[in-house]
Amino acid sequence: MSFNHKDEHVDDSMLLIQANLDDMNPEWVTYIMDKLFEVGANDVYVVPIIMKRGRPGVMLNVLVEERLLSAVEGVIFSETTTLGIRYMHASCHRLARDFKQVQTQWGMLTVKVGYHQGKLVQYAPEFKECEQIAKEYHVPLKVVYEEVRMKFMLLN
Amino acid sequence: MSFNHKDEHVDDSMLLIQANLDDMNPEWVTYIMDKLFEVGANDVYVVPIIMKRGRPGVMLNVLVEERLLSAVEGVIFSETTTLGIRYMHASCHRLARDFKQVQTQWGMLTVKVGYHQGKLVQYAPEFKECEQIAKEYHVPLKVVYEEVRMKFMLLN
Amino acid sequence: MSFNHKDEHVDDSMLLIQANLDDMNPEWVTYIMDKLFEVGANDVYVVPIIMKRGRPGVMLNVLVEERLLSAVEGVIFSETTTLGIRYMHASCHRLARDFKQVQTQWGMLTVKVGYHQGKLVQYAPEFKECEQIAKEYHVPLKVVYEEVRMKFMLLN
Amino acid sequence: MSFNHKDEHVDDSMLLIQANLDDMNPEWVTYIMDKLFEVGANDVYVVPIIMKRGRPGVMLNVLVEERLLSAVEGVIFSETTTLGIRYMHASCHRLARDFKQVQTQWGMLTVKVGYHQGKLVQYAPEFKECEQIAKEYHVPLKVVYEEVRMKFMLLN
Amino acid sequence: MSFNHKDEHVDDSMLLIQANLDDMNPEWVTYIMDKLFEVGANDVYVVPIIMKRGRPGVMLNVLVEERLLSAVEGVIFSETTTLGIRYMHASCHRLARDFKQVQTQWGMLTVKVGYHQGKLVQYAPEFKECEQIAKEYHVPLKVVYEEVRMKFMLLN
Amino acid sequence: MSFNHKDEHVDDSMLLIQANLDDMNPEWVTYIMDKLFEVGANDVYVVPIIMKRGRPGVMLNVLVEERLLSAVEGVIFSETTTLGIRYMHASCHRLARDFKQVQTQWGMLTVKVGYHQGKLVQYAPEFKECEQIAKEYHVPLKVVYEEVRMKFMLLN
Repeated sequence: MSFNHKDEHVDDSMLLIQANLDDMNPEWVTYIMDKLFEVGANDVYVVPIIMKRGRPGVMLNVLVEERLLSAVEGVIFSETTTLGIRYMHASCHRLARDFKQVQTQWGMLTVKVGYHQGKLVQYAPEFKECEQIAKEYHVPLKVVYEEVRMKFMLLN
Repeated sequence: MSFNHKDEHVDDSMLLIQANLDDMNPEWVTYIMDKLFEVGANDVYVVPIIMKRGRPGVMLNVLVEERLLSAVEGVIFSETTTLGIRYMHASCHRLARDFKQVQTQWGMLTVKVGYHQGKLVQYAPEFKECEQIAKEYHVPLKVVYEEVRMKFMLLN
Repeated sequence: MSFNHKDEHVDDSMLLIQANLDDMNPEWVTYIMDKLFEVGANDVYVVPIIMKRGRPGVMLNVLVEERLLSAVEGVIFSETTTLGIRYMHASCHRLARDFKQVQTQWGMLTVKVGYHQGKLVQYAPEFKECEQIAKEYHVPLKVVYEEVRMKFMLLN
Repeated sequence: MSFNHKDEHVDDSMLLIQANLDDMNPEWVTYIMDKLFEVGANDVYVVPIIMKRGRPGVMLNVLVEERLLSAVEGVIFSETTTLGIRYMHASCHRLARDFKQVQTQWGMLTVKVGYHQGKLVQYAPEFKECEQIAKEYHVPLKVVYEEVRMKFMLLN
Repeated sequence: MSFNHKDEHVDDSMLLIQANLDDMNPEWVTYIMDKLFEVGANDVYVVPIIMKRGRPGVMLNVLVEERLLSAVEGVIFSETTTLGIRYMHASCHRLARDFKQVQTQWGMLTVKVGYHQGKLVQYAPEFKECEQIAKEYHVPLKVVYEEVRMKFMLLN
Repeated sequence: MSFNHKDEHVDDSMLLIQANLDDMNPEWVTYIMDKLFEVGANDVYVVPIIMKRGRPGVMLNVLVEERLLSAVEGVIFSETTTLGIRYMHASCHRLARDFKQVQTQWGMLTVKVGYHQGKLVQYAPEFKECEQIAKEYHVPLKVVYEEVRMKFMLLN
């Protein structure tokens, strides 16, 4: 694992960990997702599913490096109600990533960009910053997004 | 409400009752659905939703005659964890319904049929019967369904 | 119903028609949605639901003017497998709508705009046009969208 | 509207407002939900749906008093990308609500209780408090919940 | 595979088998799930998905030991309408499990418990027993659950 | 890969590629699915999910031969907004497939059939043909399907 995470790379030592939850208070789910990010999960998401006897449930998914398996299990077993988890080996292909600044009417704002084989293919305003501007200046969030995107496009 | 429920009719005195559940053990849902049918609900179904703070939840829906509102509320308030329900007035348009028998290799089986303006538009094998035949004769359920449907078509 | 549909207005004579489908080949759904648009539905969408005995189903929703109720019912009863539908009265508040042209590197393209109380609040490239440009010029669809949006912003 | 919101009551002047979103960045959804609560929505939730041409979308639902319709519309039209909304009249039946304190190993914690026809039918630990205790004391959230529930039960 | 299934263990010889169903009567799904459990599946669940041309479908998931692959395939190919299945190798980490009895006002009831690294982390009332008590004594299912949980907590 | 794709076979060199999309216009999804089929994907489907901070998103899934990985990545990185994808090795078990003709009142129509271990287990009318007949003859799509299925059954 000597790659620079800012460069485009493939990481073959990832796990996709899953747990089906059908007897847990769903109110706890976002709290548990945050705890999983804290122990190092690369991504966490839940999928609505239908389980045994037609019960609505959610499947918790955690994408994480193999070396963090037991840390993730620690959170899942202590915070959820599951009696077991499963995992599969996965490879992650991540684009080269960088941050750019653009000048907007509300000051400098950040755009996260992604490169595939050296070519810029993604650019996205930073959610947290846009949210803060929207609140501070009482403008719709979409207006902030659009201005940041337009200003970035005009530079590229 | 003098209509014959076997004839095609519109019933304008229905309610669609809804309750959002985000802090309840989902394991209980199918049990609660059964209880709602017992007190007279015409239909009960649940919809996966995303609630406040991004929590996964389910919306319970009960379609029922207005006069049964308090019976349905009694079940919902005692069996779920909700602090409130909402309801909207609804009209139900139901087809004329009848049951037909068809001869199959496993004996006489029932087909539920529906008529719109006097014309046969729906026919469906009875699930419970087909399920029982499938189990008893060790044939795939879909094979039973297909034979019942084919035999019905040949008669009509 | 003397309002001009291009002006912002509230239409109080709408129906939301729903049918739960648990015994129908889901392959037919998009075909049926198209037929419902053909008879005049304003909107059609489906919701994944869990029905009686935990069965996965879909709820078909049709938003339509009251005067078109029987036309919509005709399609639902002949094309789906349902034995009944329900409907609720609804009001629709629609923004004033207009179409604008913007000059792009691929020629003039259309932007659909929406006004709330006289103020421009929405603008969206026309999907069909962008899709055609993306195919013809072998550019990513998102690149076409972004250019159209940017060009529109620079004009406003 | 002279009822005391802490007593059990039925409020017949509610609206269920819906907007289907198929061309909006879903990243904005939780931000928009928060804004809707800020202007007075009683509940806000989203439902995954399938729209025209098979597009995945979300249906935004806002339950709100009739008198707040235009405030809610203001948020929806300025913050989402929709060109229209619909609404239906709804009645809400809300239980009598109260807050109780229970002594736990982490101090006094709050339980929200609900009464239907004078009988206690619901009780739920306050999420925010439990979350804070879980973080502060490094105990699983479910352990906090369970203790609060048990202590409440022993008192009742 | 010499491990005792009551002890905590990791089983590396599992398969996650998936089949996408878009042209099948969804009414059959729970019947098929039961059949899959009968031939030895460890878990079965379905996920609502959107397939080719925007069709709503369900993805059937079966978690099973590798040696049972052909038995599971036999059920899927004979009972569903799919022309193919896929599978991925998976590892299952299962907690040590045990059953405890607690004294309640309705007699002795069972709690299923789970241990991670020797520490009790899960406990759940047995659904079937609680359901039977709820029916027999005409008490809400949630009341039975809560009493069982509380009694278990007081013992531990 | 010397197997004849018309014979029943297991293909062990497949990948299941996944990308979570939470900041993309969902209007683009079906366009992107079509592009993925064009570069050789065996199957493409999307799953509604809940992502970080409770955001509604969709997970794009592509089932494809290993040798087509970079072609699929090319489409995903250029057409979606994701900064990374993941993939897992998968095996596909595909039934032997064949096409049969049946005589109907609208002429000869095609049935796709599947064989498991030499035994016919699946048969399905070709959607595209049935759709065309339904439109041309103004008959419900389900009527066309049923006739094709019945005619096929009578021959077998």
